[in-house]
Amino acid sequence: MTYCVGLQLEDGLVCLSDTRTNAGVDNIATFRKMFTWTVPGERAIVLLTSGNLAITQAVVGQLRENIDHPKPGVATLLSVDSMFEVVELVATTMREVQHRYGPGLAAMNESSLASIMVGGQRRGGVLRLFLVYAAGNFIEATEDTPFFQIGEPKYGKPILDQVMSPDMTLDAGVTATLLSMASTMRSNLSVGMPLDIAVIRRDTFAFEQLRRIEPDNPAFWELADAWSGKLRSAFEELKAFKV
Amino acid sequence: MTYCVGLQLEDGLVCLSDTRTNAGVDNIATFRKMFTWTVPGERAIVLLTSGNLAITQAVVGQLRENIDHPKPGVATLLSVDSMFEVVELVATTMREVQHRYGPGLAAMNESSLASIMVGGQRRGGVLRLFLVYAAGNFIEATEDTPFFQIGEPKYGKPILDQVMSPDMTLDAGVTATLLSMASTMRSNLSVGMPLDIAVIRRDTFAFEQLRRIEPDNPAFWELADAWSGKLRSAFEELKAFKV
Repeated sequence: MTYCVGLQLEDGLVCLSDTRTNAGVDNIATFRKMFTWTVPGERAIVLLTSGNLAITQAVVGQLRENIDHPKPGVATLLSVDSMFEVVELVATTMREVQHRYGPGLAAMNESSLASIMVGGQRRGGVLRLFLVYAAGNFIEATEDTPFFQIGEPKYGKPILDQVMSPDMTLDAGVTATLLSMASTMRSNLSVGMPLDIAVIRRDTFAFEQLRRIEPDNPAFWELADAWSGKLRSAFEELKAFKV
Repeated sequence: MTYCVGLQLEDGLVCLSDTRTNAGVDNIATFRKMFTWTVPGERAIVLLTSGNLAITQAVVGQLRENIDHPKPGVATLLSVDSMFEVVELVATTMREVQHRYGPGLAAMNESSLASIMVGGQRRGGVLRLFLVYAAGNFIEATEDTPFFQIGEPKYGKPILDQVMSPDMTLDAGVTATLLSMASTMRSNLSVGMPLDIAVIRRDTFAFEQLRRIEPDNPAFWELADAWSGKLRSAFEELKAFKV
């Protein structure tokens, strides 16, 4: 499984991903699910992946290959003119990869399902956050629903519902996504550390934060413990329910 | 879908269930999923059901029929000598019902999956909480895992993980299950009000609370609002996360 979350806030974009992959509980591994590209001051793009690892690696690999070995007439994440073209490029690549591997996987009763969150901003355009499905169709975050989750969304959703608002600071957004991740990791063993965080401040076209949180990071566990303590105190302060 | 939760606390048993059933989002209805039997001072038994409604109604219906129209040599929930015999009776009835309807449902590609939580206490025995699966096998809550959830468990689990402890009061247990239900209802439309609560205080062999919370119950919404407010305050008090 996987848990990735992206928040589109007034101040910018906050993305967090885990790194655990598994083929059964007896076969777990660590793979990066967050991929970033930036031309500072010009564009900053982040992808978060979930689902069949070979599928998502094929998509990301092809996108990188096109940048590393440019061919005339072949658009890349660094050459296209807008975030809409960025997501279309990811979506087209997803369709091509599904076309290549989907039937073979289906013949073996294996799933080719995968989804990719695509966020970022290019100079001259606004900050946008998209979600690309396995069929290459996609949706965009809006004011009504300014966040996406992929992988295991359920355990980490209540905390986001309670504390997230589009006008929160980027720091608060990072904290909210980390608490959401902590809730998820507690109940779903197929979601695990280390974690990757990416933050793009609006209209800077650059990553303000891009960092990994290792399993022994004391600040992460202090945050989780502080939150647990506050929750228990808050609960004890509640009046008993009487009909 | 459904959400039912049962907590086995030092002071007794707290059970909460929703009442929404659905066959597609365009076909929702209200059905009781909590069933209780009591001989005050002698035994108190509660069942919480999830899954195929015809299956769980058949199980509960047969258990009731055997009480209402007793036959020589046929054990009933009110005649057996222990909670272990109670859960075996429920499990046996589940196997019989599955045997009767399972193949026909399978032939129509319909699921006969269902599960039933069974809790209570009989004079001379201890308070126990079980979970019966569709195959009629069952497990029992223990000190390590003193609660069960059936139906949609994920949205309501983080709050239980954070605030539940076996030594909490029964009132606090009711509050915890209600907050867990509120989180679930917010994200899963197939879980809905009214709610049914049952509380058995240990060694009383009777229901201390047995009540329904209707959708317009002001105390429930005041509780949910108070909790939301406290969560937001607690979140704002957290220090920003720094690696």
